[in-house]
Amino acid sequence: MTVNSKGRQKRAVVLLSGGIDSATCLAVARSEGFDCHALSFDYGQRHRIELEAAAAVARSIGAATHRTVRVDLRAFGGSALTADIGVPKDQYGKDAGIPVTYVPSRNLVFLSLAMGLAEVLGAWDVFIGVNSVDYSGYPDCREEFIRSFELTANLATRAGVESSDERLKVRTPLVKIAKAQIIQLGTRLGVDYSLTISCYDPTPRGQACGHCDSCTIRRAGFEQAGVADPTCYV
Amino acid sequence: MTVNSKGRQKRAVVLLSGGIDSATCLAVARSEGFDCHALSFDYGQRHRIELEAAAAVARSIGAATHRTVRVDLRAFGGSALTADIGVPKDQYGKDAGIPVTYVPSRNLVFLSLAMGLAEVLGAWDVFIGVNSVDYSGYPDCREEFIRSFELTANLATRAGVESSDERLKVRTPLVKIAKAQIIQLGTRLGVDYSLTISCYDPTPRGQACGHCDSCTIRRAGFEQAGVADPTCYV
Repeated sequence: MTVNSKGRQKRAVVLLSGGIDSATCLAVARSEGFDCHALSFDYGQRHRIELEAAAAVARSIGAATHRTVRVDLRAFGGSALTADIGVPKDQYGKDAGIPVTYVPSRNLVFLSLAMGLAEVLGAWDVFIGVNSVDYSGYPDCREEFIRSFELTANLATRAGVESSDERLKVRTPLVKIAKAQIIQLGTRLGVDYSLTISCYDPTPRGQACGHCDSCTIRRAGFEQAGVADPTCYV
Repeated sequence: MTVNSKGRQKRAVVLLSGGIDSATCLAVARSEGFDCHALSFDYGQRHRIELEAAAAVARSIGAATHRTVRVDLRAFGGSALTADIGVPKDQYGKDAGIPVTYVPSRNLVFLSLAMGLAEVLGAWDVFIGVNSVDYSGYPDCREEFIRSFELTANLATRAGVESSDERLKVRTPLVKIAKAQIIQLGTRLGVDYSLTISCYDPTPRGQACGHCDSCTIRRAGFEQAGVADPTCYV
């Protein structure tokens, strides 16, 4: 158990999308002894069914609480996930540049909201399962963004003006490891990946398309990890 | 008119709460020749009627568009503006520290969402009417937070990975001037302050309480500016 200076169990906020990375991230935070408060977002995403997966994952791994907060990114659009733009199929690795599934400023918004919850809960650790090895080239999954955000968050909040030995930390335990290693790590920690959903374009019942970038990365990850893929494909 | 390299009028995103500062900020952005896209938030605030003021201000000053985006900060609470905590009356300047009207991470969240809209619109300038002279001591109104956020925003978004001569800028034309000067500036620019609402605890019809920190700062500002106060007090 991780305790603070008063001997109480330390709290962490864990961003939870319902996919492989955030589920593993929650398991890592639990394994470090944190009292974990999971946070998901109903942001108008096409694959809204991932929120059901997030709830199942939070229960399974033992989050103390799980909140789903609404933030309407569909009001801006500009992405295949939040506007009427088709999700590319069988394109992973073929195009340079940022794919149309990039949601402008998504992780900036999500981390900012996580800092708000952390302040209210008295948590100093915020976990996010960003990964910059097997990923889609989104700018907001890179370590340099996260480290800059951490500095900004400490200026934006009580931590910036009240004297304290603590400061807000953005924890990224998965940022430098490949998808296969993430799956192996989570498997050791007991994550039930059959509860997770990665697909950007699932059926209404949550079956994965098998062809979007996210499905492609996920499928290869299980293969390379030597772990049986529990995904329910169409 | 401010134009970009293609000779088109430059776009700006302007955060608009419906109060004095953001209305003045919008007028400044318009006076600089920007095509202004106003952005307000329905975040579960006690003084939700400010959104009606924001819409009236946007029309009056000539914003090209005005969006109100929902983001549920009441899911976290932790503030007199987003939880069942009383708004302090006649306390301005009497207590040290951050008042209970501080909403954890609010400007961090709002600026992050503004960056998302800026990316979608192709705008490089985001205006925010923060002020660190006559203000309530909120950490997220300080210049050092804004400058750090600007660096982070450029790493979080397309600007961070795609080559461009442009970078996202957070414009804070009011950050270093007193409330009276802001009112004088806005008056010169033709802002109709009778449309604005500053009160944290207004009546359902939008009359100001006259005693919260925000009313106290506003009232003193009009007095010191030598401008007739158009506020409708209870």
